Amino acid sequence: MSLTIRSARAEDHAALWAILEAVFRAGETYAIDPDIDRAAALEWWMSGTHDAFIVERDGTVLGSYYICPNQQGGGAHVCNCGFVTAPEAQGQGVARAMITHALAEARARGFLAMQFNCVVASNTRAVRLWQAHGFEITGRLPEAFRHPQAGFVDAYVMYRKL
Amino acid sequence: MSLTIRSARAEDHAALWAILEAVFRAGETYAIDPDIDRAAALEWWMSGTHDAFIVERDGTVLGSYYICPNQQGGGAHVCNCGFVTAPEAQGQGVARAMITHALAEARARGFLAMQFNCVVASNTRAVRLWQAHGFEITGRLPEAFRHPQAGFVDAYVMYRKL
Repeated sequence: MSLTIRSARAEDHAALWAILEAVFRAGETYAIDPDIDRAAALEWWMSGTHDAFIVERDGTVLGSYYICPNQQGGGAHVCNCGFVTAPEAQGQGVARAMITHALAEARARGFLAMQFNCVVASNTRAVRLWQAHGFEITGRLPEAFRHPQAGFVDAYVMYRKL
Repeated sequence: MSLTIRSARAEDHAALWAILEAVFRAGETYAIDPDIDRAAALEWWMSGTHDAFIVERDGTVLGSYYICPNQQGGGAHVCNCGFVTAPEAQGQGVARAMITHALAEARARGFLAMQFNCVVASNTRAVRLWQAHGFEITGRLPEAFRHPQAGFVDAYVMYRKL
């Protein structure tokens, strides 16, 4: 079965929280409180200016991403996205499908660039994937992320025009 | 009279909004909707995780800054600040007093670094002031800010350890 991507709905909360909980509790890739509760996590991922999408295969939710303006006003033409893949679905092209969809979605919405604000340097899989999709490391933030095992590691700002 | 800096209070709303309105309406230095209304502007500046301070001389409010964590979780040891100076008080050392206070405040709160996410490159006065206080341009975001007169200009990520 191929991957399909669609807008997230309230009915996705349970499946989405299962993925967010695994990723956020690990504390290795997102600058989010590892103890965040379900309501706050779903609120952050799906609400406000965030529009969330779901990746599924044969009805099983394997990942999610959101898209939103990264800044307001004079910065509103640059979007931001966040991506999570279910731990058991790693290596199956889920993140690749999401970034491809996100770039098209961003262009369709009229954004002119996409920016990731805090890519943890030790998350080499993500760094390489973004680079393969045209992102450059435009900023290096020394020891800006405290990794639960590795301690203080650098974070990157990654950016590409659309 | 010398400048004094203290925590912002609800009674400061009118004076603070006068400054925020001038700065935000101009749209030249902040990635904030230039049409933002008073309630939303004050909410953003003073509420949530933001703690706001007021600079005054002889009872007249001349500027304000806020301090907050720039990220959550593994990124919560890096703070972010925003600074506004009343247009009529430019060149009187207000911003310099605020950044000096902010660096001490950040250290007192246990932050290990300070980051500015979107310093508009054409705001050369600010860039020079931050550089004079130890900040480096750690990221360059090509055309990430749409200036009302100059059009698309670069934005900088500026960062320093504390």
